Amino acid sequence: MPVDPGAAITVTAFDWVPDFARGQVRDLRVRWALEEVGEPYAVRYLALGQQKAAAHRARQPFGQVPTFEEGGLTLFESGAIVWHVAERFPGLMPERDAARVKSLEWLIAALNSVEPPMLDWANATLFEAGESWAAARAERTARGVAQRLEALSDRLGEGAWLAGAFGPGDLVMVTVLRIVEEAGFLAPHPNLVDYVARGTGRPAFGRALEAQIAGFTGAPPPG
Amino acid sequence: MPVDPGAAITVTAFDWVPDFARGQVRDLRVRWALEEVGEPYAVRYLALGQQKAAAHRARQPFGQVPTFEEGGLTLFESGAIVWHVAERFPGLMPERDAARVKSLEWLIAALNSVEPPMLDWANATLFEAGESWAAARAERTARGVAQRLEALSDRLGEGAWLAGAFGPGDLVMVTVLRIVEEAGFLAPHPNLVDYVARGTGRPAFGRALEAQIAGFTGAPPPG
Repeated sequence: MPVDPGAAITVTAFDWVPDFARGQVRDLRVRWALEEVGEPYAVRYLALGQQKAAAHRARQPFGQVPTFEEGGLTLFESGAIVWHVAERFPGLMPERDAARVKSLEWLIAALNSVEPPMLDWANATLFEAGESWAAARAERTARGVAQRLEALSDRLGEGAWLAGAFGPGDLVMVTVLRIVEEAGFLAPHPNLVDYVARGTGRPAFGRALEAQIAGFTGAPPPG
Repeated sequence: MPVDPGAAITVTAFDWVPDFARGQVRDLRVRWALEEVGEPYAVRYLALGQQKAAAHRARQPFGQVPTFEEGGLTLFESGAIVWHVAERFPGLMPERDAARVKSLEWLIAALNSVEPPMLDWANATLFEAGESWAAARAERTARGVAQRLEALSDRLGEGAWLAGAFGPGDLVMVTVLRIVEEAGFLAPHPNLVDYVARGTGRPAFGRALEAQIAGFTGAPPPG
């Protein structure tokens, strides 16, 4: 619903990605945050390859998505954008200072402690799948993911959210856990399965996911 | 200088680490931030192994350092702690809102876009050094680091800092770049060499580093 070509906010996204990445590209985090606060946004779609061109690198130095533009402000890093959206518009940021800092703690834990071993595992099983060491590293990196998830499950316990009320930290953590959900990593931890279901059951998440999927209208790369 | 056993703030750190980790453990980021704002802190030293025990996992769910305690607040994730210190005490946070959000963007870029490929490279060359694939992965992961540094160097250009005035984002980025400095990764980019020198030349950094090194008074693990 808040996708609106005339909106004051513009987000960048890809117009095509391989099937495994659909529903995972990180503009989903920004769309979700904007849906939570009810702010409309326009989307600038990049055809595959355009993200490395100078025009986009001026927005995103590493040639990735998403970016966020509003007025004179251009931001990259999905975590920073989610935080900014929560600071700028009411509806997503916890009200008390102590709850805010705990939410930032979990946002950064998601990005710096939980996501890196998952990307390591994804590299081993996707991008290094043809290498001689693929099987050994798939196993090693899967152990790294499992250790982090066990610690996370212990900490969550029977709580609904990691950072008190739902906010930017839990939003980002849910999207990070979804990276390994289909591969079955969450199954040993019913509380993490429920946690992700609680997040993705939010109407704002549903609208964000639908909008991302609907945006994949581009052609795959030739060859 | 601000290390003070009676201080209201307590930081956790290790009392022993291998030589290669001295001056790199992430409590350095927190010590540096506290030195920048001139706040004294006490240190709770953990002997190697204690970080995985329940008492410390109550503070840090993944069994790592640093943590930050003040009054009823306990925080983990060095990036979140640095940000909190900058919000709580004057002297480190940019004044304008737009500069603050750019500082958070670079703090998260350091932790989520620049540090992960470095840890991948460090894993390949340190912890997987005995594996059959070590040489091939060392080369592959080094390319990943080099790509990120090239993009970062392009973005920094002739600027003094990435996020305008020095703040939490540049503080964290400097500590991340130091991870690969000794291995020579920065050498192709004189502007990054100068950037790190500018950061580590700050008196607050010098005091933080000295305090971390002075704290390694524990015995190495047996065997």
